Amino acid sequence: MSTLQGIALVAQGGGPTAVINQSLVGVVNESRHHPQITKIYGARHGIRGVVKADFLDLTQTTARNLEQVAGTPASALGSTRDKPTPDYCKDMLAVIQKYGVRYFFYIGGNDSSDTCRLVNAYATAAGYDLRAVHVPKTIDNDLMETDHCPGFGSAAKFVAQAFAGVNMDNRALPGVYIGVVMGRHAGFLTAAAALARQYPDDGPHLIYLPERPFDPKRFVADVKKVYDRRGLCVIAVSEGISGKDGTPFISSLMKGKAVERDAHGNVQLSGTGALGDLLANLIRDKTDIKRVRSDTLGYLQRSFLGCVSESDAVEAREVGAKAVQFAAMGQRSGSVSIRRIGDYAVDYVLVPLEAVAAKTRHMPNNFMNAAGNHVTPAFLNYARPLVGPLPAFARIAAPAVAKR
Amino acid sequence: MSTLQGIALVAQGGGPTAVINQSLVGVVNESRHHPQITKIYGARHGIRGVVKADFLDLTQTTARNLEQVAGTPASALGSTRDKPTPDYCKDMLAVIQKYGVRYFFYIGGNDSSDTCRLVNAYATAAGYDLRAVHVPKTIDNDLMETDHCPGFGSAAKFVAQAFAGVNMDNRALPGVYIGVVMGRHAGFLTAAAALARQYPDDGPHLIYLPERPFDPKRFVADVKKVYDRRGLCVIAVSEGISGKDGTPFISSLMKGKAVERDAHGNVQLSGTGALGDLLANLIRDKTDIKRVRSDTLGYLQRSFLGCVSESDAVEAREVGAKAVQFAAMGQRSGSVSIRRIGDYAVDYVLVPLEAVAAKTRHMPNNFMNAAGNHVTPAFLNYARPLVGPLPAFARIAAPAVAKR
Repeated sequence: MSTLQGIALVAQGGGPTAVINQSLVGVVNESRHHPQITKIYGARHGIRGVVKADFLDLTQTTARNLEQVAGTPASALGSTRDKPTPDYCKDMLAVIQKYGVRYFFYIGGNDSSDTCRLVNAYATAAGYDLRAVHVPKTIDNDLMETDHCPGFGSAAKFVAQAFAGVNMDNRALPGVYIGVVMGRHAGFLTAAAALARQYPDDGPHLIYLPERPFDPKRFVADVKKVYDRRGLCVIAVSEGISGKDGTPFISSLMKGKAVERDAHGNVQLSGTGALGDLLANLIRDKTDIKRVRSDTLGYLQRSFLGCVSESDAVEAREVGAKAVQFAAMGQRSGSVSIRRIGDYAVDYVLVPLEAVAAKTRHMPNNFMNAAGNHVTPAFLNYARPLVGPLPAFARIAAPAVAKR
Repeated sequence: MSTLQGIALVAQGGGPTAVINQSLVGVVNESRHHPQITKIYGARHGIRGVVKADFLDLTQTTARNLEQVAGTPASALGSTRDKPTPDYCKDMLAVIQKYGVRYFFYIGGNDSSDTCRLVNAYATAAGYDLRAVHVPKTIDNDLMETDHCPGFGSAAKFVAQAFAGVNMDNRALPGVYIGVVMGRHAGFLTAAAALARQYPDDGPHLIYLPERPFDPKRFVADVKKVYDRRGLCVIAVSEGISGKDGTPFISSLMKGKAVERDAHGNVQLSGTGALGDLLANLIRDKTDIKRVRSDTLGYLQRSFLGCVSESDAVEAREVGAKAVQFAAMGQRSGSVSIRRIGDYAVDYVLVPLEAVAAKTRHMPNNFMNAAGNHVTPAFLNYARPLVGPLPAFARIAAPAVAKR
C-alpha cells in the first residue's frame, strides 16, 4: 500500500448540531499524528468554500482553541445548503487538485456522503489519487448503515429535557400542550420526547411521527380521550407528519400560498410556528378544551448552548479521528459508521459511500406502537445510552389533609 | 409581641419558574425550626386549592424528597390563573379560619401579593390573627420594590444560552433569525438575550422591548441595515411589543379573529408562533432577504429541565426561608424583597404588601439605548450576577490560506 502524501481538507455541511465541532476537532487532532498529511485546511461554508478555495489553515490552531471549539455548538467552519450537482463536484475536484489536497473529510448527512461519492468518482476517472471520507452527522438520525448518528444524542437530550419540563409545567397549569419537533422524514428526534417520562402518567401522552400517516380526525379523538381521562394532554409532533399520500400536513395549511423550498425542492418546515398553531386550532375547534398551547422547539434543538450528551460528544470526536485513520493508515475512502456492541459500547467501521449516499433511514416498525401514536420500550432501550442520564426531578411525596 | 401558634399554609400561583420549588422548600424547611408552626400544609393549584381546602400535609415530606423537588422546575403544588377577587379572598379566609391556619405564604407575582394583601385585610377586619407573607417569583422580573425576582435569573440564563447557540447556528447558515421571548409588559427577559454576546459582531444585533413603541417600518429598516453590513441578523423580540397607543402588536394580526383572553382580560400571547411568523413575513415582504427564520422560545423558557442559575436557586430558597422568619419570629405580614449590596451580594427585607400588590415594574430607561433597539452596558452589569457564568464557547482561531 502506497502512502499518499498531501494536504487534508475538512468541511462541514447541512444543519449544524451540538457536537459537529467535536468531529472537526477529531479530524484535525488525528491528522497531526500522520506525517503523510502535510497540512490541514478547513473549507468555510462546506462545499461552497471548496469551490471558492475559501480555506482556513487549521494547522495553525492551538490545542486550547480546538478544545474550546469542540465544546461549541454549530458548525465552526460554517455550513451550506448548496446541492452537490455533478458539475459542482467537478469544480470541487479542480480546486482539490490545484491545492494538492489528497485527503477530503466531509462532516454531514446523506447529501454530504453523496458529495464524497461524486468527488471520489470524478477523482478516480481523472486518475487523481484522493481519499474521500464521509464523517456522519445529523440530529435526524436518518443515515443508513450506522446504528445512530453523532448529533442525535444531544438533540434528543434537549428534546427530552424540554418535554420533562413541559410535563411539569402542564401539570401545574393543566391543558393541552403540543410540542413540534424537527425531523422531516424520520421520527427519531420526536420519539426522544418519550425519554422525558418518569412517572406512569407523565407525558408525552401522544407522539406522532412522519413514518405513520397523520389523520387529523384520529388526532382529535386521541387527544380528547387522554384529556377526558387525565384533564391534561402533552403531545409531541414531528414537523414532517404527512397524509396517506405523503404530502406534508403543513402543506395543507399553505394551499394557495407561496411556500419556501430548499435546493432539494423540500418545503421549508422549520423556522415557523404554523404547524403547531394549526394543530392547536384544530383542538380548539373540535373540542371544548379551553387551554391549548403549542410550541415549536425550533433551532434550539440543534444549537442550544450547554445541552450535550456525553456519549454523543465522545463518539462525534471518535468518528472524526477514525475517518483520518481509515484514510491515512488504511488508504480507503468511505463513510464512517457506528456499530453498537452489547449494552452499551460501540465500534467504528468504514462502509462504502454508495451505501449511505442520498439514502434515508426511517424508524423501524418495532419502535412505534400499533396505534401509531406512541413509541415502544424497544425505542427507549435503543435511545437511552445515546442520550445518557437526564437531570433528576421529582414530585412531592406527601399525603392529602383530611377535609373538615 | 405574642407568639401566634397554628398551621402554616403555603401555595404557588401564576406561571411556574425553574426555581419556584426552591422557595417552597425554603418555606417548609424553615417552618420546621419554629415550634409555633404546628404543621405545614401545601394548597394544590394556588388559591383554588385554598378555597377547596385541597391540601397536602407537607409536614410528612422527607428531607430527600424536598431536595429533589427543590431542583425540579415548575410549581410542584400546582398553580392557577384564577383572579383573586374580594369574594374569592373572603372564601379563602373562611377556609383559613376553619383549618386553624395562622401563617399564609403565597409564592407568586404581583397578583399573588395582591391576594396576600386582600386576605390579610379581611383577616384584620374579622379580628382573625393571621400573618400573610408574599414570596416573590416571576420570570418577567417585573415586581416593584425588589432588585430582581427569583425565577428571572434562570429564565434569563435559558434565553442567553438559546441566543448564544442561535448566533453560532446563524453564522453557519447566515440569514435573519427572529427569536420571540416571553414578557408582556416588562422587557427584562428579552433583554437577557444580550448576555449571549461574546465577540463584537455576535447577535442579537437588535432587541425590541415592550417599554418602547414598536414601529414595523423602523423594524424593517433596522434589520436591512444590519443585514446589508453583516450578511446576517439575529433579533430578540418581546412577545409584548406594542404600538404607540399601547395595543399589543400581535393584536393587529388578529383583527376580526376571536382572541383568547385570560381572567385579567389580557390577550393570550404565549403558546403560539403567530408573532414570530408575522415579523418574519414582514421581512420577507419588505426586503429581498431570502433566508428568514423565526422561533418562539415558548414554555421552555420557564420550565426547561436542567438550566438553572446558581444564584437564582440560592436566592429563591432564601426568600422562602426569610418569609417564614419574618412571619414567625418578626410576627409581620408583607412581601419579601431582595436588596442588592455591592457587586454582588444580597440582603432580604420585608416591604408592605401594598407596595407590591398588582403593580408592575418596567425596565428603567438607562437599561435601553436611545434608538430603542438594544440594551445598554448598565443592563448587562445589572443582569450578569443574576444569571452567572454561561457555558464556554469559541470560534476557530486560524489564518486564511492564500489563494492560488
